[in-house]
Amino acid sequence: MTTRGRLYGIGVGPGDPELLTLKALRLLRAAPVVAYFVAKGKKGNAFSIVEGYLGDEQTRVPLVYPVTTEALEPPLCYEAIIADFYDTASAAVAGHLESGRDVAVICEGDPFFYGSYMYLHDRLAERFDVEVVPGVCSMLGGTAVLGAPLVYRNQSLSVLSGVLPEDELRRRLAEADAAVVMKLGRNFDKVRRVLVELGLSHRALYVERATMANQRIVPLAEVDPMASPYFSLLVVPGEKWQA
Amino acid sequence: MTTRGRLYGIGVGPGDPELLTLKALRLLRAAPVVAYFVAKGKKGNAFSIVEGYLGDEQTRVPLVYPVTTEALEPPLCYEAIIADFYDTASAAVAGHLESGRDVAVICEGDPFFYGSYMYLHDRLAERFDVEVVPGVCSMLGGTAVLGAPLVYRNQSLSVLSGVLPEDELRRRLAEADAAVVMKLGRNFDKVRRVLVELGLSHRALYVERATMANQRIVPLAEVDPMASPYFSLLVVPGEKWQA
Repeated sequence: MTTRGRLYGIGVGPGDPELLTLKALRLLRAAPVVAYFVAKGKKGNAFSIVEGYLGDEQTRVPLVYPVTTEALEPPLCYEAIIADFYDTASAAVAGHLESGRDVAVICEGDPFFYGSYMYLHDRLAERFDVEVVPGVCSMLGGTAVLGAPLVYRNQSLSVLSGVLPEDELRRRLAEADAAVVMKLGRNFDKVRRVLVELGLSHRALYVERATMANQRIVPLAEVDPMASPYFSLLVVPGEKWQA
Repeated sequence: MTTRGRLYGIGVGPGDPELLTLKALRLLRAAPVVAYFVAKGKKGNAFSIVEGYLGDEQTRVPLVYPVTTEALEPPLCYEAIIADFYDTASAAVAGHLESGRDVAVICEGDPFFYGSYMYLHDRLAERFDVEVVPGVCSMLGGTAVLGAPLVYRNQSLSVLSGVLPEDELRRRLAEADAAVVMKLGRNFDKVRRVLVELGLSHRALYVERATMANQRIVPLAEVDPMASPYFSLLVVPGEKWQA
């Protein structure tokens, strides 16, 4: 009887390949199969981060998203298409595990912090032996390169998606001691408008592709809302505690 | 003229020494001076994590907290005492930098995520060349060992301190899609009571010293509130998104 393989969900950090953990690197190098989510026609951020660490003998399994946007015209339904896709991706990974091969699913940032790996985990964790290796999340990669201490002492931190409706964004940002807004892209203009309305724009910092080779830090007022990439972050650090 | 040293704020991750990043390890090993915050009479979590990586020739600079609790009897004032302490600690670090020695200040988790390093950074970053190396924060170490995907898709995450007053905790937890409560310790009973009141206790997970050798995962109802250590976490994961 074949011993079933083990599933690893491995956070590979925000972009700089040196921000992998020692554990992630060890498990990644030992894995006969390396799987990763990627947009059609792209190499993928997670794969780009680890590419230099992989050997020729390791099997690459790209899991290619069927759609690149959540905004689809009826009768297309994002939720249905993506659910089918995660089923198929899980089956592909399960096939290797059933055959006795360990699979490392690599995830940009951390696997459980807005990662697509979570959808594989929810489908496979009860059937297979699983280990999750936490990673440096993009949020903390961002605050490090911005030189911005994020939360002091007993401050509350709100992590928000730029996709949220404007009124919910306004309400949540108004109540936050410190905040990070992820998933900007086409939502940048809306988020900046809310920050200005709330009088928070002077505290807000912006970075694109933090810790990657093409990282860019731009003053909030100078960001071109049409050119803001999905992998950009807005950070409103907590007020400095004068200890 | 002596070239001044460089200050590094280095996140060393949540506890497992293998959760250091490659960059943290490289800079840590190269630093002539390693400084760390520690309670009186203790070795310190951050130092324990990296101890095995240090060489005998590296100078250790423990920065020993003068108090271990924020609740002091008048005329003692925590804020004043701790501000003086951070001034003194900054001067100790600055002395090495002025003499041309790089200093690595090691921080459990991430330097900018509730880390004491922030108070050195705020005092020294304008005077010296500084680099911050992000780390795996304790929150994500916790969710990894709990096997608990934290935030799906466009859910909002609230990171809260257990020190918050009960009504603020209740208000913030009621509005959160997903939440993490840090700094439990003596606040555990209050936080659990609020979770029960809000009907969230069935979703909440609890872990002590995540990824450390003495890690403990305990069902919420079975936690002894008198024995909950400061380095414990409560996690209320976001509702699974059924993609």
